[in-house]
Amino acid sequence: MILSALLVSVGINLGLCFLNVTLYSVLRRQPFTVPVYAPRLLANEEFRRRWGRHHHYSLERLLPSTGWIMTAWKPTDQELLSTLGVDAVVFMRIFVFSVKVFSVAGFIGIFILLPINYLGSQLEIDISDFTNLPNQSIESFSIANVNNGSKWLWVHFSAIYVFSGAVCYFLYTEFGYISSIRVEHYNSTPPQPHQFSVLVRGIPVSPDESSCSDTVENFFKENHPSTYLSHAVVRRTRELQSLIRDANAMYNKISNLKLKDLPEQRFVREGLLGIFGPKVDVLFKYEEKLKEMEENVRKERASLIEKEVPAAFVSFKTRLGAAVALHIQQGINPTEWITERAPEPQEIHWPFFTTSFVQRWLCQLVVFIATVALIILFLIPVVLVQGLTHLDELKALFPFLKDILDVAIIGQVITGYLPSLILYLFQSLVPPIMMLFSSMQGFISTSQTELTACHKVLMFTVWNVFFANVLSGSFLDQVNVLLEPKEIPHVLAQAVPVQAAFFISYVVTSGWTTLSSELCRLKPLLYYSLGRLCSGESSSEVEAPSIPYHAEIPTILLFGLLGVTYFFLSPLILPFVLVYFCFGYIIFRNQVMNVYYPKYESVGKFWPIVHYSTIFSLVLMQTIAIGVFGLKKVSSAATWTIPLPILTLLFNEYCRKRFMSMFKDYPLEQCLAKKDQEEQGTASMHEFHDKLVTAYQHPSLSARFSRSRDDLHSPLLPRSASA
Amino acid sequence: MILSALLVSVGINLGLCFLNVTLYSVLRRQPFTVPVYAPRLLANEEFRRRWGRHHHYSLERLLPSTGWIMTAWKPTDQELLSTLGVDAVVFMRIFVFSVKVFSVAGFIGIFILLPINYLGSQLEIDISDFTNLPNQSIESFSIANVNNGSKWLWVHFSAIYVFSGAVCYFLYTEFGYISSIRVEHYNSTPPQPHQFSVLVRGIPVSPDESSCSDTVENFFKENHPSTYLSHAVVRRTRELQSLIRDANAMYNKISNLKLKDLPEQRFVREGLLGIFGPKVDVLFKYEEKLKEMEENVRKERASLIEKEVPAAFVSFKTRLGAAVALHIQQGINPTEWITERAPEPQEIHWPFFTTSFVQRWLCQLVVFIATVALIILFLIPVVLVQGLTHLDELKALFPFLKDILDVAIIGQVITGYLPSLILYLFQSLVPPIMMLFSSMQGFISTSQTELTACHKVLMFTVWNVFFANVLSGSFLDQVNVLLEPKEIPHVLAQAVPVQAAFFISYVVTSGWTTLSSELCRLKPLLYYSLGRLCSGESSSEVEAPSIPYHAEIPTILLFGLLGVTYFFLSPLILPFVLVYFCFGYIIFRNQVMNVYYPKYESVGKFWPIVHYSTIFSLVLMQTIAIGVFGLKKVSSAATWTIPLPILTLLFNEYCRKRFMSMFKDYPLEQCLAKKDQEEQGTASMHEFHDKLVTAYQHPSLSARFSRSRDDLHSPLLPRSASA
Repeated sequence: MILSALLVSVGINLGLCFLNVTLYSVLRRQPFTVPVYAPRLLANEEFRRRWGRHHHYSLERLLPSTGWIMTAWKPTDQELLSTLGVDAVVFMRIFVFSVKVFSVAGFIGIFILLPINYLGSQLEIDISDFTNLPNQSIESFSIANVNNGSKWLWVHFSAIYVFSGAVCYFLYTEFGYISSIRVEHYNSTPPQPHQFSVLVRGIPVSPDESSCSDTVENFFKENHPSTYLSHAVVRRTRELQSLIRDANAMYNKISNLKLKDLPEQRFVREGLLGIFGPKVDVLFKYEEKLKEMEENVRKERASLIEKEVPAAFVSFKTRLGAAVALHIQQGINPTEWITERAPEPQEIHWPFFTTSFVQRWLCQLVVFIATVALIILFLIPVVLVQGLTHLDELKALFPFLKDILDVAIIGQVITGYLPSLILYLFQSLVPPIMMLFSSMQGFISTSQTELTACHKVLMFTVWNVFFANVLSGSFLDQVNVLLEPKEIPHVLAQAVPVQAAFFISYVVTSGWTTLSSELCRLKPLLYYSLGRLCSGESSSEVEAPSIPYHAEIPTILLFGLLGVTYFFLSPLILPFVLVYFCFGYIIFRNQVMNVYYPKYESVGKFWPIVHYSTIFSLVLMQTIAIGVFGLKKVSSAATWTIPLPILTLLFNEYCRKRFMSMFKDYPLEQCLAKKDQEEQGTASMHEFHDKLVTAYQHPSLSARFSRSRDDLHSPLLPRSASA
Repeated sequence: MILSALLVSVGINLGLCFLNVTLYSVLRRQPFTVPVYAPRLLANEEFRRRWGRHHHYSLERLLPSTGWIMTAWKPTDQELLSTLGVDAVVFMRIFVFSVKVFSVAGFIGIFILLPINYLGSQLEIDISDFTNLPNQSIESFSIANVNNGSKWLWVHFSAIYVFSGAVCYFLYTEFGYISSIRVEHYNSTPPQPHQFSVLVRGIPVSPDESSCSDTVENFFKENHPSTYLSHAVVRRTRELQSLIRDANAMYNKISNLKLKDLPEQRFVREGLLGIFGPKVDVLFKYEEKLKEMEENVRKERASLIEKEVPAAFVSFKTRLGAAVALHIQQGINPTEWITERAPEPQEIHWPFFTTSFVQRWLCQLVVFIATVALIILFLIPVVLVQGLTHLDELKALFPFLKDILDVAIIGQVITGYLPSLILYLFQSLVPPIMMLFSSMQGFISTSQTELTACHKVLMFTVWNVFFANVLSGSFLDQVNVLLEPKEIPHVLAQAVPVQAAFFISYVVTSGWTTLSSELCRLKPLLYYSLGRLCSGESSSEVEAPSIPYHAEIPTILLFGLLGVTYFFLSPLILPFVLVYFCFGYIIFRNQVMNVYYPKYESVGKFWPIVHYSTIFSLVLMQTIAIGVFGLKKVSSAATWTIPLPILTLLFNEYCRKRFMSMFKDYPLEQCLAKKDQEEQGTASMHEFHDKLVTAYQHPSLSARFSRSRDDLHSPLLPRSASA
C-alpha cells in the first residue's frame, strides 16, 4: 500500500467521523431524540420535567455545537464513581490507560524510530525526492527499511526495553488503583443481598426428607446455627413465565383496543379471513381469554411448589457467614452442596438453570469444543476477505473486473476500505454467539456470562483478526509451524511486518468508524423512529441499554494489541491508534453519562482481562522483536531481547499474586469483619434482614407480583423478569 | 539382547534376592540386630522386656525361616490403620493397586498378546525350532514381530482399551477408598493442635505498635473475637540452637569421662599436641566451659524476645475458626497476613523460615530453575551409562578390553547388570538434593517438603530413567522433535520398543535388588555394628527411621510406568513387574510394621501423586499405541485409538473434581462443624486448649525445656529439636 492510498482511507473516514459527530451534535438537541441519545437521564424526574418543557422550536437547535464534549470532559473520576458506578469508571480507565501507553509509544515511535526507519536504505527508495512522497510505500517508514546489521537497530532495541518498562509501570499503578476502588466501593455501599447470600447447587435430596427446602434448612441450621437466616429454593418456572408472557400480551391488546375505541377494529366478522360470518365483539372475547389465562397462571403458580430444582439461594445474617459458606467445602462429596457467590437478585438469568454437577461439566466441555470450532471455522471467510487486499490477485481471479479495478480511486477504496468493512460485519455476529455459549456453561448471572463471553470474544478477535490475517496473508500453512515453539519468533518476524499497511487502514476504517457510529447510534435511532411512527406517541418509555462489555472490550483491546505489536515495526500506526483512544475516551464518557444504564455492578471485574491482554500484546511484540533482530542480522540484540518476555511474564505473575485475589474475594479485615461489626444490631440491619428473606424469590413467584383480581389488568410482571 | 542373557540376569538377581532373604530371616532373630530390624517395636515396653529376656543362645536361631512372611501377611487394613497410621496404609495401597493392575495386564499380556507376537513372522525368526529358544532375541516376543498390516493387531487394540478401562476403574475405587479413610481418620482422632491452628506470614509490623506479638494479638482479637485463642510468634533461633548443640556435646563429653573414670584420659598435658606442659584435670576444665555455655544459652534465650520474625502460629478455639482464618483472605494486601495450614508441632522445620512474600517467591523461582537444570544436566552420565549396554560399541571404544568382553559370561553381566547398577547409584544421590531444593522453597513442615520433593524426584526419574534412555539409546537429538506435538507418537513408537530389553533387565536388577536390600538393611546394620563396636554397649537407644516417601514412591511408580508402557509392546516385562510388586508388598509390609516409625501423619496426601503418575503412564502408553499402529500400517486402529487418551484425561479431570478437594481441605459438614459441636464445652476440650497455647512454641524456648541448675547436666534439648 502506498501512502496516498492510506491518506484516501484516512480522508474518507475522517469525513465520515466528522459527519457523524455533526449529525450527533444536531440530533441530540432535538426533543424527540432524547429517548435515543439520553435514555439514562430520562430516569431522572427533574430531567423529564425539563425535557417536557423544552418542546418549542428554535433555530439554535439546528446548529452543530461542541458543548457536549465539554460536558463529557468535565466530571472527575470520583464524581463518575458516585453517579455511574464502578464498572463504567473501570471501562473508562481502559481508555485512560491506553492513552498513557500510546502517548509514550507515539513519542518514541514518531520522533525517534520513524526518522531512523525512513533514513535507512534497505528497500532502496530514493528519499531525497520529497515530491514523490505520496507514492512511496508505507514500508519505507517501517523497520524493513533499516539496513541489515545496522547499528541503528540498537535504538529499536532500547526503545523496546523502555516501552515495555513504561507499560508495566502503567499496568501496575492501574491495577492498584482499581483494586483500591473495589475496596472503597465495598466499604461505602450499604448492605446488599448478594453480599449476604450464596447459591448452593447439587443439594442431595434424600427420599425420607419431604422436600429440597427442608433438606436445605436442616443442613444449614445444623452447620451454620448462628449465621443462617433463610433460603429460597429454585423452581422450574419456564412454563409459568411463558403463561405470564402470553397473559401480558393479551392485556396489552385489550388496553390498546380500549384506548382507541374504534368500532371497526373492535367488531370483526368471525369467519374466514374476517370477511364472512357474523360480527363479534373482540374485546369481550379477549377478556374471556385473559380470564382463562389468569386462571392458568394461578394454577401453575400453585403447582410450582413441586417443581423444585436441587439448588437454592441461602442467605446469612452476616457477610462473614456467607463468606464461610462460600469458602469452606460444605459436603464430604465435593459434587454435592457446591456453593458459589450469589449474584445480585436482578441479574439472575433464570432460564439456564442446569444443576447437576456432571451435566454442567459436560456442558462446559461441549461449549469449549464449540468455541474452538467456531474460532477455527471462521478462518474461511477471513481468508476470502484477505484476498481483496491484494489487488493483483483479485484481477487475476476476476478478469472481467479488471477495467473497473484499474480506476485508481476504486482500487484504493477496495484495498483500503472494503476488507475491513466486511471483516467488521462478520465480527459483529460473534458476541451474541459467544454470549449464548457462555450462558450454556451454566453461569446464572449476566455479569458472569458476559465476563466469560468477553474472554471468548477476545480470543476469537485476536486469533481471527490478528493471527489469521498475519498468517493467511503470507502463508496460511504456517499455522503448523506455529506449533514448533522455536520457530515462532522467526515466522512472526516474517509475517507480521508485511501486514502493517492492512492494520493501519484497519485502525482507521474499523476503529474510527465504529466509534463515531457508536456516538451517532443510527440503528437505535432508526428503530425508535419506526416504533414511534407505528405506535404513535405512547411508547415514550424507553429502557436505557447496558454497555455490551463483552463486545466492546475485545474490540478496544484489539486496537491496543495492534498498537503495541507494531510499535517498533511500523511506528506510523501509533498516531492513528492514539487518536482512536482519545476519540474513544470522549465518546464513551458521553455515552456512559447519557445512554447506558448498567444492568449490574461487577465492581470492575473486567479489569484483569485488560491486564492479561496487554501482557500478551507485550510478549507478542517482544517475541516478534527477537525474530526481527535475528532476520536483520543483529543476533546479539536478538539474544539480549530474550530476557524481556521472561521478565514481563514474571511481572505478570507478581501482579497476579499481588492484586488478583482482590478481584475474586473480599478480604476479612476491613471489608467483612469491620462492616459486620459496625452494622450488627442496628435497626437498619433488621430491616435489611427482612428484605433479604425474599430477595432471591423468583420474580414470578414473590408476593410483590401476585396481584388481586382488581389490578390483574395491569402487566403481571416487570419487564426484566419477563425478558 | 537374547533370551539367555535375560535369563542370566534373572538368575543372578533371583540368587541375590534369595541370599538376602535368607540372611534376613537368620539375622532378624539374633538379639543384637533388633535395633536394626525392629526399631519400631523397641518403643513398645512389653517388646523391650521380652527382648531383654531372650538373650540365650539356641541353634534354632541360626536356621532360616519364613515365619516373618506370615506375620507380615496377616493383619487387615483396619488393624494396620490403628497401629501404623494412614500414611503407611496408603503407601501399602500403592502395591495393592499395582498388583491388581498388573494381574489384569499380565493375564492379557502373557496369555493373549505374547502368543500372537511370537507367532508373527515380521522379524523372520524360525519359531518351529524350540531348541534354539535361549538364543532368540527378546524382540520375537514383542509387537515388532507381528506382521505389518496384520488383522491380529486389532487384538492389541482391544487389549489397550480393556486395560485402560480396568486401570481407570481401579484408580477410581482406590481414590474413593483413600478419601473415605481420610474422613474416617479425621472423625476418629482426638483434637490435635494443627487442626486448630494456622501459620500467619507477612505480618505488617507498624512502627507505633511495640512488637509483632501485639500486632498479631490485636488483629485477631478484632477480626476473630469469638474464636481466637492464642498465638506464638516465630523467633530467629539459629544461634540459640547452635549454642544448645555445643552445650549438649560438652555435656556428653563430661558424662563419658565420668563414666569411664580413666585417669590417663582425665589428666592431659596442656601444651603442644598434649605432650608437653603440666598435667591438667580436663574434667574440671570442661565443667568450667559448660557453665560458661549455659550462661550464654540463658543470655541468648533472654535476648530472643527481640529476635521476632514477622510470622506466627495462631491457634483458635474451634476447628471452624481455624478454617475461616485459613480460607478467607485476611488483609487487603494479599502479600500480608498470608495464612496457611499449620503443620503438626513436631514436624516443623525451623531453620528454613524465610518470611517475606517476594523472597519466598524468588526462592521458588530459583528452585524451579535449579530443578530443571539438574534434570537436564543429569542426562550426561545417563548417556555414558547407556553406552555400556551396547557391547560392540564398548569394544570399539576400548579395544584393550576386547578379550575380556569376549568371555560370554562377562559380556552378559555387562549388558544385563552393570548399566542398571550405575544408574541406580547415580539416582540415589537425587532424593537428598531434591529435599534440599524443596526446603529452600519455604515449606516449613517435613511433610510438605517431602511431598514436593516427591514430585521433583518423580519428574526426575521419569525423565532421566525413562525418556533419556529411550531417546538417547536411539537418537538423543530427537528431544528437539519432541517439541513438535504431531511427531510425538511417531518418535516414541520408534524409540520406546527398542529399549524393551534394557527395561526388562532394569526391572529385574534394579527393582528386585533394591527390594531385597531394603529388607536386609545392610547399610544400617553396618553402621549400627560399627557404632556398637566403637562405643560399647551403651548406644542401644536407636531411633526408628521414617519411610523416605520422596525416594521410595518415585521408584515404585517408575516400575508401574514401565509395566504400563510396555504392556502391549513387550508383554514379557509384565511377569517381572508383577513379581516386583508382590515381593514389594510383603517386604514393605514387614518393614512398616517393624522398622519405620512415621515422623508425621499427612493422612494419605501422597496418593494423588500415584494417581496422576498412573494417568500419565496410561496416556503415554496410548500415545505410543497410536504411533505403533501407524507404523504397523493399521491406520484405522491408530485413528480409533486417538479418543482413548482424551477419554483418559477426561476421566482424570473428573477424578480431580470428585476427590481432590478431600486431599486439600476438610469439609464443613461432618468434619468441622460436627466435631466442634460434639466437643464444645467438654472438660477434655478445656484441657486441650491449655495445651494448645504452648503447642507452637519453639522447642528451645518453651518452658518444658528450660531446666533448673540441677538437671542442666542432662541434655538440654530433645533429639528432634536439636537435629
